[in-house]
Amino acid sequence: MSLFTIAVHGGAGTIRKEDMSPDMELAYKQGLQEALDAGYAVLSAKGAALDAVMAAVVSLEDNILFNAGRGSVFGKDGKHEMDAAIMDGTNLAAGAVAAVTSVRNPVKLARAIMTESPHVMLSGAGALEFAKLRGLQLEDEQYFYSAFRYEQWQQIQGTDQTALDHDVKLADASVSKAVGEKKFGTVGAVATDQFGNIAAATSTGGMTNKQWGRIGDSPIIGAGTYANNRTCAISCTGHGEPFIRAVTAYDVSCLMEYKGLTLEQAMQVVVHDKLMKIDGEGGMIGVDANGHAAMVFNSEGMYRGVRNSNGLNNVLIYQGS
Amino acid sequence: MSLFTIAVHGGAGTIRKEDMSPDMELAYKQGLQEALDAGYAVLSAKGAALDAVMAAVVSLEDNILFNAGRGSVFGKDGKHEMDAAIMDGTNLAAGAVAAVTSVRNPVKLARAIMTESPHVMLSGAGALEFAKLRGLQLEDEQYFYSAFRYEQWQQIQGTDQTALDHDVKLADASVSKAVGEKKFGTVGAVATDQFGNIAAATSTGGMTNKQWGRIGDSPIIGAGTYANNRTCAISCTGHGEPFIRAVTAYDVSCLMEYKGLTLEQAMQVVVHDKLMKIDGEGGMIGVDANGHAAMVFNSEGMYRGVRNSNGLNNVLIYQGS
Repeated sequence: MSLFTIAVHGGAGTIRKEDMSPDMELAYKQGLQEALDAGYAVLSAKGAALDAVMAAVVSLEDNILFNAGRGSVFGKDGKHEMDAAIMDGTNLAAGAVAAVTSVRNPVKLARAIMTESPHVMLSGAGALEFAKLRGLQLEDEQYFYSAFRYEQWQQIQGTDQTALDHDVKLADASVSKAVGEKKFGTVGAVATDQFGNIAAATSTGGMTNKQWGRIGDSPIIGAGTYANNRTCAISCTGHGEPFIRAVTAYDVSCLMEYKGLTLEQAMQVVVHDKLMKIDGEGGMIGVDANGHAAMVFNSEGMYRGVRNSNGLNNVLIYQGS
Repeated sequence: MSLFTIAVHGGAGTIRKEDMSPDMELAYKQGLQEALDAGYAVLSAKGAALDAVMAAVVSLEDNILFNAGRGSVFGKDGKHEMDAAIMDGTNLAAGAVAAVTSVRNPVKLARAIMTESPHVMLSGAGALEFAKLRGLQLEDEQYFYSAFRYEQWQQIQGTDQTALDHDVKLADASVSKAVGEKKFGTVGAVATDQFGNIAAATSTGGMTNKQWGRIGDSPIIGAGTYANNRTCAISCTGHGEPFIRAVTAYDVSCLMEYKGLTLEQAMQVVVHDKLMKIDGEGGMIGVDANGHAAMVFNSEGMYRGVRNSNGLNNVLIYQGS
């Protein structure tokens, strides 16, 4: 039995301890732990890496704290356009969706595109049509609006703050974070299963106030998401445009395949050298087929966690903690 | 002064000499030569590789024989959804557009996204909105419908064929090709200018009868299009899905950067080994900063041409001719 491992991220950027209340910190860490546990449960039951990364990303998409699925930020027109991708390292199968609305779990749609269409990438209204054909769960705007409504509501009802209790403050604080920082808001997971297979998945609500049908790196195979049993599974989070230009996730794979670097070495080169040269702020999580994991970023913080069958279980936000 | 070079392609696939009339062959070769000449004129006037690839791709987009711009194939709903990308090897700047309608020259839109937006990739209705803001030329459905109308018209008017003369036959034949073969229909250009800078551009009308907002490899930086002065500029054409999964264009660059392969060697590995393993049919054109060019494909044919300042000027369709 191989070492099996799951790692998750919930976005990177200017995440500072001094901006974070103990309640918020706890809530983020709980969300990351829940995602780790959802993925780990699949792996420990001899499930596939592909199923583990999907379970972890679904957990993060359903958590309003993170900019993906339910917690997706607002585009310029008030809509939530979401992107996601998934890739199976065993056969390089991949599925991706860009600029889709209404789908509760875009990562499930990405997987349906991978397994039930002849295509890799679908977009916009056409992607939603495919989701409906496949019977995927849809949600109305209310579902995606909740966080924002809390904020609006609190602005109007400011004097009632103490009456609202810690839950509402938490919701409000998370919204402020979501709106202010979420240029880099993304969720993702990578996993190695007991059979030495690996997979990666990424999902995002994109940039706050985004317009013109902008597509970031998350759904681009090779940029935000990549998996290949021979090298690594990678999920990125950061300022999407430089990540696309640097073909970030696949670059890690090439440095391993063609130069013989380890996973950690390759990730360091890409995040601290290649990306920095083109002002690419953010980070990534990765695993290899032996169950090694690494989490590397060049921003102030990255919501992240890793759990493996040797008993490792770490959830972190800032540099080193 | 460096050797300067332009190469173009007009799609790859099951292109057989026995299916092609002399008139058709001549028309395709003329179209490719016009595109080469448009790019070469820019280069010989000390223009930038970026301007040369745009001029060449605009020429191909305006030519109804090729599946891009005016000659784009019909999606399932009768619309023309087009994709394009452009990349500048001097600074890794890139622009891409997916699933856009009505824009006469999607490659110009890709370039406007690169230079006049903070984004790399825009899609759908939002991309069209951006095109309008930038004053790009739009066309009505009539403009994109012409070829199809010729075919419909000839089916109805079959008995009048001889009266129609060679132009109409030509149009009809090209349409039949476009509908039958154009799973792999794409146009593209790569160039090295007198200053040793390189660039790549790709444009496509996608797959006939495509649906669900499918996005192929052409607008994916790293898959269908890539340029980096340190390695190569690449434009691909083929069955888009495997090209995305193989991160085809960037793989050539990595084989050159990390393994020291030449442009031609790297292209051979990717087209004949990497792509074949996942049933990826098609090909690519490439240049390096020294003005070397290569054109490699694993399908029966690829519409292609190359011209350089040493007097080389070749336009080819089949293996070796």
